[in-house]
Amino acid sequence: MNKETHRMTTEATPEQPAQQRLPRTLTRDLNHHDGQTVRLQGFVHARRDLGGVQFVVLRDVSGVTQCVGKGLNLPLAESSVEVTGTVKAHPKAPGGFEVQISEFRVISAAVEASPVEIPKMEWNVNPETMLDYRVVTVRGLKERAALKVQAELVAAFRDHLMTEGFTEISTPKIVSAGAEGGANLFPIDYFGQGAYLAQSPQLYKQIMVGVFERVFEVAPVYRAEEHATSRHLNEYLSLDVEMGFIEDEEDVMSLENRLLASIMTRLKATSQAEFDLLGATIPDVPAHIPRISLFDARALVTEKYGHQVGGKDLDPEAERLLCQHYAETEGSDFVFVTKYPRAARPFYAHPDSNADGSLSSEITRGFDLLFRGIEITSGGQRIHDHAMLMDSIAAYKLNPESLSGYTEVFKYGMPPHGGFAIGAERLTAKLLGISNVRYARAFPRDRHRLTP
Amino acid sequence: MNKETHRMTTEATPEQPAQQRLPRTLTRDLNHHDGQTVRLQGFVHARRDLGGVQFVVLRDVSGVTQCVGKGLNLPLAESSVEVTGTVKAHPKAPGGFEVQISEFRVISAAVEASPVEIPKMEWNVNPETMLDYRVVTVRGLKERAALKVQAELVAAFRDHLMTEGFTEISTPKIVSAGAEGGANLFPIDYFGQGAYLAQSPQLYKQIMVGVFERVFEVAPVYRAEEHATSRHLNEYLSLDVEMGFIEDEEDVMSLENRLLASIMTRLKATSQAEFDLLGATIPDVPAHIPRISLFDARALVTEKYGHQVGGKDLDPEAERLLCQHYAETEGSDFVFVTKYPRAARPFYAHPDSNADGSLSSEITRGFDLLFRGIEITSGGQRIHDHAMLMDSIAAYKLNPESLSGYTEVFKYGMPPHGGFAIGAERLTAKLLGISNVRYARAFPRDRHRLTP
Repeated sequence: MNKETHRMTTEATPEQPAQQRLPRTLTRDLNHHDGQTVRLQGFVHARRDLGGVQFVVLRDVSGVTQCVGKGLNLPLAESSVEVTGTVKAHPKAPGGFEVQISEFRVISAAVEASPVEIPKMEWNVNPETMLDYRVVTVRGLKERAALKVQAELVAAFRDHLMTEGFTEISTPKIVSAGAEGGANLFPIDYFGQGAYLAQSPQLYKQIMVGVFERVFEVAPVYRAEEHATSRHLNEYLSLDVEMGFIEDEEDVMSLENRLLASIMTRLKATSQAEFDLLGATIPDVPAHIPRISLFDARALVTEKYGHQVGGKDLDPEAERLLCQHYAETEGSDFVFVTKYPRAARPFYAHPDSNADGSLSSEITRGFDLLFRGIEITSGGQRIHDHAMLMDSIAAYKLNPESLSGYTEVFKYGMPPHGGFAIGAERLTAKLLGISNVRYARAFPRDRHRLTP
Repeated sequence: MNKETHRMTTEATPEQPAQQRLPRTLTRDLNHHDGQTVRLQGFVHARRDLGGVQFVVLRDVSGVTQCVGKGLNLPLAESSVEVTGTVKAHPKAPGGFEVQISEFRVISAAVEASPVEIPKMEWNVNPETMLDYRVVTVRGLKERAALKVQAELVAAFRDHLMTEGFTEISTPKIVSAGAEGGANLFPIDYFGQGAYLAQSPQLYKQIMVGVFERVFEVAPVYRAEEHATSRHLNEYLSLDVEMGFIEDEEDVMSLENRLLASIMTRLKATSQAEFDLLGATIPDVPAHIPRISLFDARALVTEKYGHQVGGKDLDPEAERLLCQHYAETEGSDFVFVTKYPRAARPFYAHPDSNADGSLSSEITRGFDLLFRGIEITSGGQRIHDHAMLMDSIAAYKLNPESLSGYTEVFKYGMPPHGGFAIGAERLTAKLLGISNVRYARAFPRDRHRLTP
């Protein structure tokens, strides 16, 4: 940080002009100041008044530290305060150092006690209460750790893709029709016209392949799904990727493999403390994530674990068992499930090739990626040929007129392309062992929650 | 790029397995391959058939290059193709090199001629037609240059803020009430409940100051404003910043000053070609952007230019003249207009100090940033004291009950904080001299435009 940055971190008081004051020190840097006088700023995370002596646990963006003083008039927890004092090594204190307070200033006093004691919160305790008071509970160390990890994960996602020549795009979230056909859309009144919240940037990222060849977007998407489960959100952050001039879906899976490896490498460098706090482990990403076709995956789960899989896809238990198999046999937390049948994929999924080189009418080049028992990605190669797309729309018995906004761009020489999307909150939650995906979003929206 | 990346850039053909083919070369790298055989992929940007000889201008993500061959059956423009051939220096060709085609393959043929000839498009020609056919016109070199510059600008925004300890956040775009009071909101049907599209992450970024102290967000915001001008969009990408533990709004302006300098430095390194293409200049950012109070700015414009300023703010002509003044006298394309009157700011704007140290009832710590004649930022210090905020709500004759979702967090020791927001499209358009902000968004939404 430069000098100007330091200057901005405190309020002026008439007695002590800013330029004469100590620069602010972050709690994580106390180890560089043993025996010195420092100035800290932050929130009263916890406090204890033993009469003659007062303890304040100060929380700043970088951590918490115990401060001890005498004759202090302690404000309510969550008040923002400034502490000036001497750093002293203290093996039992969090972080290994304590600050002996010489000056204590309340910057902004809390006027009510927090409805939830921030240091005592635990995952899974009164989740609705935690979310009702999210404006203050989100300050909790574990709560913010999840969001911090997500910020790093998203930055790593972007940075890696830019090194592979991808361009970031921003596409409309107000749309006239749904990318997947029309179900599960939130209606908007757009100047009296009917419109919807986008459930995916699917079409737009495909259009932009015609512009930049390789694109990505990090933006919210919307699913008006009625279910209230621990793995769904009605608004979530979608990490979308689309790449052109591919050979087949293998190129897309290879990209995602490299991307995940890059993300985990960065998290090991930046976020180990957050993983430690949450008792979670950053996974190793194999150089080649195992692949198994959906057909073989269903058979494996039935044969090895005796689980009968319903439907056309994998059910949640089958996803869990398949991941258990690859964790045990190959030490991989990830597995690609490939070659999804047409019946389980949207009309734009590209058909797979038969052994004779012709195109399959049954099997697509669609894949899912499972991680620690749950699907975190859907992806695949898309149809790029206009005639093939129109045939597929007819085969799905969809109305080509209502999809004309989608099909238009395929008249203009779209190259073979494919992509995938990762739900940022779901990946964050699985990485950190958070049981409910809502805690991986700052202010979740679900079937019943529109505030805060 | 690693080997695997190269491998993924073409389709396999039975005659020539992928591993035996040349790696793909991008057109911008032809200067490294003079005299060599290369394999290019891209779109037919333009074509000309002179009978005995055919010219194809191939466009890929990195630029365009002229290719020449004989006996070719040229597909429609915008078809995606693969060219193998020999690179030859050719001073008159774009990029200085030409490729003599030995092998020409149509990857995906356009099935209709583009409704607009991509190489012949110019800004300001038939803007509605250009936007009607945006799925293909967005491939134009100037069109995509604007979006590429924006991608670099946004990346520079994030990267700079992360070096100053800011954390990226993702906040809800579905909200139960507007941050600014309720006007200009798009209504959503949220499972039968009334909700709105967020017009700003204002409250949420303030809440998150209580968590990470310094935060930013890059996300769409929504304004249901009826006007259709060249400077407004109904959906735009907002670059939002909020920082805590500040002294006053000067800290916020200093940050924005450093941030803009960092962005322009990056654009000079990454985007000079796009600026050249558009005939635009990347501005120098002064180490200290000039500041002038709104009161003095209005007087200056009247005294120097004889322009009477209506309303409480600056009108567009006054913004233009003020910028002209600072460009001429200080060589600065930027100027901060400070100390906005309360009457021109929302209820949460922090009051300025009077000379005696008391707080002003008339003047706030709000500011705008003007750039080349237009406002690109509103910002300021916000009220953090709960009692002061409640008083302000009463003074604005607003209903505290309807704002209780906003005021809640201020019970819990919020530190002094402030921030700003930059409209990404408006900044991009002004940087590049694009007259209509809609061309700085891939798929703009305006009063009459909901597609593509």
